Amino acid sequence: MSKPDARPLAPELAVSAWFNTPGPLTLQGLRGRPVFLHSFQLLCPGCVAQAIPQVQRIERVFAHTDLQVIGIHTVFEHHAAMSPVTLQAFLHEYRLKSPVAVDLAEEGSDIPVTMRRFGLCGTPSSVLIGRDGTILHQVFGVEDDIAVGARIAMALADPVPVRAAETTDADDGCVGGRCAAPLLS
Amino acid sequence: MSKPDARPLAPELAVSAWFNTPGPLTLQGLRGRPVFLHSFQLLCPGCVAQAIPQVQRIERVFAHTDLQVIGIHTVFEHHAAMSPVTLQAFLHEYRLKSPVAVDLAEEGSDIPVTMRRFGLCGTPSSVLIGRDGTILHQVFGVEDDIAVGARIAMALADPVPVRAAETTDADDGCVGGRCAAPLLS
Amino acid sequence: MSKPDARPLAPELAVSAWFNTPGPLTLQGLRGRPVFLHSFQLLCPGCVAQAIPQVQRIERVFAHTDLQVIGIHTVFEHHAAMSPVTLQAFLHEYRLKSPVAVDLAEEGSDIPVTMRRFGLCGTPSSVLIGRDGTILHQVFGVEDDIAVGARIAMALADPVPVRAAETTDADDGCVGGRCAAPLLS
Amino acid sequence: MSKPDARPLAPELAVSAWFNTPGPLTLQGLRGRPVFLHSFQLLCPGCVAQAIPQVQRIERVFAHTDLQVIGIHTVFEHHAAMSPVTLQAFLHEYRLKSPVAVDLAEEGSDIPVTMRRFGLCGTPSSVLIGRDGTILHQVFGVEDDIAVGARIAMALADPVPVRAAETTDADDGCVGGRCAAPLLS
Repeated sequence: MSKPDARPLAPELAVSAWFNTPGPLTLQGLRGRPVFLHSFQLLCPGCVAQAIPQVQRIERVFAHTDLQVIGIHTVFEHHAAMSPVTLQAFLHEYRLKSPVAVDLAEEGSDIPVTMRRFGLCGTPSSVLIGRDGTILHQVFGVEDDIAVGARIAMALADPVPVRAAETTDADDGCVGGRCAAPLLS
Repeated sequence: MSKPDARPLAPELAVSAWFNTPGPLTLQGLRGRPVFLHSFQLLCPGCVAQAIPQVQRIERVFAHTDLQVIGIHTVFEHHAAMSPVTLQAFLHEYRLKSPVAVDLAEEGSDIPVTMRRFGLCGTPSSVLIGRDGTILHQVFGVEDDIAVGARIAMALADPVPVRAAETTDADDGCVGGRCAAPLLS
Repeated sequence: MSKPDARPLAPELAVSAWFNTPGPLTLQGLRGRPVFLHSFQLLCPGCVAQAIPQVQRIERVFAHTDLQVIGIHTVFEHHAAMSPVTLQAFLHEYRLKSPVAVDLAEEGSDIPVTMRRFGLCGTPSSVLIGRDGTILHQVFGVEDDIAVGARIAMALADPVPVRAAETTDADDGCVGGRCAAPLLS
Repeated sequence: MSKPDARPLAPELAVSAWFNTPGPLTLQGLRGRPVFLHSFQLLCPGCVAQAIPQVQRIERVFAHTDLQVIGIHTVFEHHAAMSPVTLQAFLHEYRLKSPVAVDLAEEGSDIPVTMRRFGLCGTPSSVLIGRDGTILHQVFGVEDDIAVGARIAMALADPVPVRAAETTDADDGCVGGRCAAPLLS
């Protein structure tokens, strides 16, 4: 794992709708916890066959930890075919229980906002974000379960950073340690 | 395989749209050839993970024979989520090349017409139809590849029935051996 | 399937020991039944991971037919490591129930006799033998289950040949349609 | 992971032969490094199909770390069938590159010595040993890759214990950090 100072801060999520969560989540509000962010499209064969089953194994193995798993539906093709209505049925049929965000569409572009901010190459992709909000690892495709498990364990083993504690003191409408941050411009 | 006389004639397909074919197909028009009809929904996990890969193996192994593979999209739940627009993108992403029909919706029922006619229990299902138009085998779920291969080989080995030959002489608007039959009531 | 006249007659098995059968089998004695002969070595990774599981699926699917499955342990390397004692424990641990023959070693050669007679390239290999005793298909490696199922079904669908019937009339010590033929030289 | 004080020290290996290593290894000599010890039998189907492929994935993912992978061939049945000669050919065919020990047979018992010392229930089993020589995790069967990767990462993240450093100062014939310890009685 690279040195904390050398690691870029993860950009904030830009989301038009949430599923499987009582309220919106933000990376800033999750500061202090590691986040496994997985980017998918419901008609992407590799997502359905490999990435999503891996996400479900991650949820099961790390259920007793403070890891936060978040899916982001980053539609960059067949936009009409993968509407939120279809996504909702997909989440039901595939028994996805963790929070899933619809990446915010950007006028004049096929690439939605969060996908562009992170510089994701396609789906499936995943980003592991540390307790300090920096990007520990980002990859296009699906990696070996053993390596994924090892990386998440390292992220969990990191001590909670002081910086994160300071952040949650800010007057930004945080409730119960979760904050609805304004989107980064 | 049961005796021909004991086997029910397959009901006709009822279809609202076709993909991957220059024109509509009918079972009557295909009389003389065996047909492997597979019923699926694009958000059905077992269809995507097991049945459709099996269909693609069937297409590859029997490419040099006169077997006709037909998919029928029998949506009986999440209707708004599985529209023809989404189906079209699905067929593109999953590289399905053989003809796929959208089962005709029936007003006042969640179950579409072809699904009801065949008495299909759910998805994935498959029906193997003999050269004489009778149902050789119908099953809910996915069977062992070896058994599927054996059954299709038996259907292919059957001699072309005389009855089928007579049928195609009828004045029913057949062109090139394919007929657009009126739907059974 | 090629024309019967064009197909070579399968050579006879040469065997030093049998497992899972009350007495030795011969291809001549099995004339009239199709035979699926699979060649393996117990330390061959492809045999253990792919070919033997496929053989077990074949046995299950065709249990109600007159197909005869025979394994032949064609050791051509690591001879000391794959003795009959080890083979017997292997058959027990992998729950192989159908007859298995130890291919007869030939002095001065690493290649055992049956393997040489059939011209097998290595393990796993399989040979499908028709009711008339001819080789319908022979392959090095493991083929798609669908294709294997289709080929076996075609072999089973072949009518019992007259030639086979004549053979079993010969005065060669046949009992109940099975004959203990002397090995071909 | 339990507290270090609560964890039992791993007993020493008892070995009659080594493969894939220039000289014998001991757990005492490896103190300071985490050890993944996997117990197998070459005719155990679960070992061949699941455990050994997992070991090979572990070796690949953690190749750049100081994790030591060791296999131990704990034969407790079919002893004549799984001799060192057969094991050597097995290691060659399955491309196992890391050190493998033959568990020491004990007169009058089917269970070899190391297997008994660790209280292993059968094969496949695995034991994860920490830098301080204590047993972090021991399990019969094969666990999820993600969990295995996470546990090994945690073992690697543990600081090298002072106790281990002291041990290697002892006058016990250690060379290059590896020691040939006398077997525990």
